Amino acid sequence: MPSQIPLYDIVIIGAGPVGLLLSVSLARWGYKVRHIDNRPVPTATGRADGIQPRSLEILQNMGLKRKVMAFDPARVFEVAFWDPAPGDKIVRTGTWASCPEFLDARYPYTALLHQGLIERVLIEDLEKSGAKVQRPWTITRFETNHKNPEYPVEVDLKNLDSNVTDTVRAKYLFSGEGARSFIREQLGVQIRHKDPISHVWGVMDGVVRTNFPDIKMKCTIHSDHGSIMVIPRENNMVRLYIQIASSTDPDFDPRKSATVEEVQLAAKKIFAPYYCDWDRVEWYSVYPIGQGIADKYTLDHRVFMGGDVCHTHSPKAGQGMNTAFHDAINFAWKMHLVESGFASRSILNTYEVERKFIAETLLNFDNQYAALFSKRQPSADEVSDAHESGSSETKNEFVEMFKANCEFTSGFGVAYNPNIFNHSSEHSFQHPLIITKSQNEKLRPGRIMPPGNVTRVVDANVVHLENEIPFNGSFRLFIFAGLSQGPKPGQHKALADFAQHLTHPDSFYSRFSHKDSNRDIHHDSDNPHSRFFSLALVLAARRPEIEISDLPAVFQDYAGKIYADDKKDIRVLEAKASAHAKVGLEGEEGAVIVVRPDGHVGVAVRLVEGRGTVDALEGYFRGFTVRTGLGGGGERVKSYL
Amino acid sequence: MPSQIPLYDIVIIGAGPVGLLLSVSLARWGYKVRHIDNRPVPTATGRADGIQPRSLEILQNMGLKRKVMAFDPARVFEVAFWDPAPGDKIVRTGTWASCPEFLDARYPYTALLHQGLIERVLIEDLEKSGAKVQRPWTITRFETNHKNPEYPVEVDLKNLDSNVTDTVRAKYLFSGEGARSFIREQLGVQIRHKDPISHVWGVMDGVVRTNFPDIKMKCTIHSDHGSIMVIPRENNMVRLYIQIASSTDPDFDPRKSATVEEVQLAAKKIFAPYYCDWDRVEWYSVYPIGQGIADKYTLDHRVFMGGDVCHTHSPKAGQGMNTAFHDAINFAWKMHLVESGFASRSILNTYEVERKFIAETLLNFDNQYAALFSKRQPSADEVSDAHESGSSETKNEFVEMFKANCEFTSGFGVAYNPNIFNHSSEHSFQHPLIITKSQNEKLRPGRIMPPGNVTRVVDANVVHLENEIPFNGSFRLFIFAGLSQGPKPGQHKALADFAQHLTHPDSFYSRFSHKDSNRDIHHDSDNPHSRFFSLALVLAARRPEIEISDLPAVFQDYAGKIYADDKKDIRVLEAKASAHAKVGLEGEEGAVIVVRPDGHVGVAVRLVEGRGTVDALEGYFRGFTVRTGLGGGGERVKSYL
Repeated sequence: MPSQIPLYDIVIIGAGPVGLLLSVSLARWGYKVRHIDNRPVPTATGRADGIQPRSLEILQNMGLKRKVMAFDPARVFEVAFWDPAPGDKIVRTGTWASCPEFLDARYPYTALLHQGLIERVLIEDLEKSGAKVQRPWTITRFETNHKNPEYPVEVDLKNLDSNVTDTVRAKYLFSGEGARSFIREQLGVQIRHKDPISHVWGVMDGVVRTNFPDIKMKCTIHSDHGSIMVIPRENNMVRLYIQIASSTDPDFDPRKSATVEEVQLAAKKIFAPYYCDWDRVEWYSVYPIGQGIADKYTLDHRVFMGGDVCHTHSPKAGQGMNTAFHDAINFAWKMHLVESGFASRSILNTYEVERKFIAETLLNFDNQYAALFSKRQPSADEVSDAHESGSSETKNEFVEMFKANCEFTSGFGVAYNPNIFNHSSEHSFQHPLIITKSQNEKLRPGRIMPPGNVTRVVDANVVHLENEIPFNGSFRLFIFAGLSQGPKPGQHKALADFAQHLTHPDSFYSRFSHKDSNRDIHHDSDNPHSRFFSLALVLAARRPEIEISDLPAVFQDYAGKIYADDKKDIRVLEAKASAHAKVGLEGEEGAVIVVRPDGHVGVAVRLVEGRGTVDALEGYFRGFTVRTGLGGGGERVKSYL
Repeated sequence: MPSQIPLYDIVIIGAGPVGLLLSVSLARWGYKVRHIDNRPVPTATGRADGIQPRSLEILQNMGLKRKVMAFDPARVFEVAFWDPAPGDKIVRTGTWASCPEFLDARYPYTALLHQGLIERVLIEDLEKSGAKVQRPWTITRFETNHKNPEYPVEVDLKNLDSNVTDTVRAKYLFSGEGARSFIREQLGVQIRHKDPISHVWGVMDGVVRTNFPDIKMKCTIHSDHGSIMVIPRENNMVRLYIQIASSTDPDFDPRKSATVEEVQLAAKKIFAPYYCDWDRVEWYSVYPIGQGIADKYTLDHRVFMGGDVCHTHSPKAGQGMNTAFHDAINFAWKMHLVESGFASRSILNTYEVERKFIAETLLNFDNQYAALFSKRQPSADEVSDAHESGSSETKNEFVEMFKANCEFTSGFGVAYNPNIFNHSSEHSFQHPLIITKSQNEKLRPGRIMPPGNVTRVVDANVVHLENEIPFNGSFRLFIFAGLSQGPKPGQHKALADFAQHLTHPDSFYSRFSHKDSNRDIHHDSDNPHSRFFSLALVLAARRPEIEISDLPAVFQDYAGKIYADDKKDIRVLEAKASAHAKVGLEGEEGAVIVVRPDGHVGVAVRLVEGRGTVDALEGYFRGFTVRTGLGGGGERVKSYL
């Protein structure tokens, strides 16, 4: 009786970071999620632990950062390098910022706490949406078939305690199983090893007492007795990474292990002449790890994979969980826009294209970093200036490489290549009002929009503009009115024209509006008109000068998303309007910046009188939306991918 | 059998803000607290709701702010004034900042959420210290006698459910019972009414739908149909205050009441022509309130009172809970320093002196504010400039009065008069190195130390200097090394001299050091040497230049409290060392700023070579410490009060 088969929008296997962030997102947006994990309980301690600056912004945008920070993670602002010195000593040869000021991060540090605490925050949020993770369940079989074309994926699940089995159907299956993936194996997707070298790592979390001065910093220590990486943790703990064996060793054994005492003894020798004793050990593990990347992230655009299933690498740069976060949100919004009838199915291609490119960048970086960790010993001269903000003169190639890597490892180098979402001169749609890279280098499609502080008109709160629209699955239209658009009636012709054309019944905006015209939008400040768009209007005026009732009607429904660009910013002290300046808008003219649901810029269009601005946006959105809107079943535009 | 009588350090009656903050503090410091409340459960909704900027700093200093903010309180940055206009309308005649930029607050807003949520945070913290609030218990009798001189207060308690009674003895009894106080009545302490006028207020919390544009702001609305105060709340709620009757009315009845519907109708008329409908009402209350202040806060320095027991006033300025917080922490640290053998008992006098002065200031302000609320209708011209930062030219007396009141209502005007703690030219101890008001107007004894951002050397974290020493009952010695004290050995002679004399066995610092020389101080970064002092050292150097092992030994035990003054600050952009500049130190010379346990400056002394700096501090501390330190029983110095 096939009618009894439970139906889900998605089945998610694995409740690590990638699976959890995906199910949190989809459950919030109303999708029916079956989420299982084969472990009986969430991670209790240890494992991944580094949340990079950009990931903190993502968590903030999801309203989750505060809950993570409530665990008081350690915060790493700088990295220190220690090298061997004469007399069997070690000396600090340099320090640098983990997220230098030129990156303009809201949270210029890495937060360190164990993966289980992060999972706990995500699981609590999931449960608020009425979903949950079932444990210990595993997947035993799956196939894509046409028994139910709307739910083409058939999945067999099994409870590992009771051996009860369950067959379900879903629109999508997502594997967040980790490096050992049943789904990837069944699909026959190969892992390519970028670097044939593999390593055995020992990792130990605990509380130490030591006179080593940088025990609260992230450090790499090279000594004549080996190398170690020090990472501070929550609860006064520290994590030590020690390389126990490498496939380059003459007698390499990937199963080589070491006891707690052996690792502690090795650490003691490396730290000498500083002492290092252990008050307690919280977690200890030894594991072999190689670099690898999956050939494909999906074969049929129904069964997808993300996180460690697709990419493994050394733990040294603290990238694993962060890459998983990006995988999850990248897939979440694309699946959402397809399944809710907004975008054509072909956009799902971009998941693999965008995320695999980043994984490849990560593995290349990891290679360099591993080489650095094993061999390079920078001297103090080389690096002492690297932490200076915006210092444009650097002393050598090594510091240059470091800077580039800082940007990547902190998450701000996650820059997607041109495609249907990320406009460029290669895009099939072109319009003279689209702002090009050479016209404004601060707005780079594929990268995030620079942050800015503004005053919310309705309550005079000083807020982070970039977080004013949450990760709600909508495209974000940030309308920077420009310096010539005054706050008084009659002073904002370009804005009035924009509003008029935006709300024309045939516009991309109106086509996807809510169908229920009696909908109660009084308290809906994010999506009063459409599930697919959230607007924010930034006026270059002082807050008391702005009267919301003077503005075009479309903005009055967005009363909670109107901002005065009237705060001074130390980075652009001379600017007339700081938030405008931070996105590169210093002239009279404004712009509409389209930001994808994940915070990356899609396109920016000059705000001018007439219909040109909306025309340009129209052309951009026609590139991937279905032509007839929510009516469904209509002709879909061809993909430009 | 008197030996069976339970003994406590303190019995606290009432678990509102004053009682809870007091028991949280004392329980954290290891005191044995009996805390009762006659209500069966904590406040469920409504009641006091405004946490002012300075109170947020206090909560932050206690590690409690994040938990309060997790409830997403509304944040009030500005106040709007609405007045009658021709045609039966109302118009906005001005807005101003609730905490203007010249106040330099960390959190320049009032946080609004109902008292029960704040109580919940405090109760959870109390339970972490192993204490709790017993409910529903009441006090039936108390007396101070000499049956047990160490525990002179005898208290009878009774459980209101079971009628079980309990007689206990304590060193102190504290009443936080609220306006109707059994203890105050028993003591025969009179309430003086500052203003003979009393009012009946209606207050309503709920969710409204309205097109009134400032519903998310704090507003006072004067209309031809009456006056109303609007205060935004957590969870999209709003609070309305309506004055229902006044003793100046011809037919005044203090028992006058009004139904929900009557108040809603009255509000509707006042808001017209804007509409105002209610989605739901969460809380509604009508209560008469008069201004009053208790003659005494204690009679015998054993039974003390605080909070609404001692001062009542109108709710309009949101001061009640904030004044209670200050009462609690002021009493807490003084009792702590007496009971732990540090300070002479006479310091307890200063609780009433300091806090009653503030209550009187509050009542004076409340009078002015009430008059303003009832009569004054500022025009837009008068107030439009009040929100501009640091604007020194203001247009009239009214704005001046407003500014002075902003400082007071935001909590930064809590400025204690000169006494034994707050040094001035009237203090009995004088020393040429003590920095006088005319030498540095930013360091004003009796007021808080200005905030500053610095880089913590040990982990490169950018931190709020003023919060680096928590409310731990210790005096805080902030040592600003000055611009001439370099980070390298040999560059810090004044600092070395200071360290040498500070740690001399006869110094005030050494006299109160831990008696157990084998004490494990490895992880004790706040109080490695003494329960009564916490040190923080600020060096005008870049973090990478500072090597903690180069500093005098005393600071090495404070490794976690050494800071680089190397962050730019938009308020002092030209300064060589921002944190130094913010406390008024722009010359070569440094200073030691003594901050009382509650964050208020006690005295500031120039940091010079030789023993002068420690001598000056010695003289200051001798003013109120017991002469022989913890040995106990020794001769106590006379009080200079």
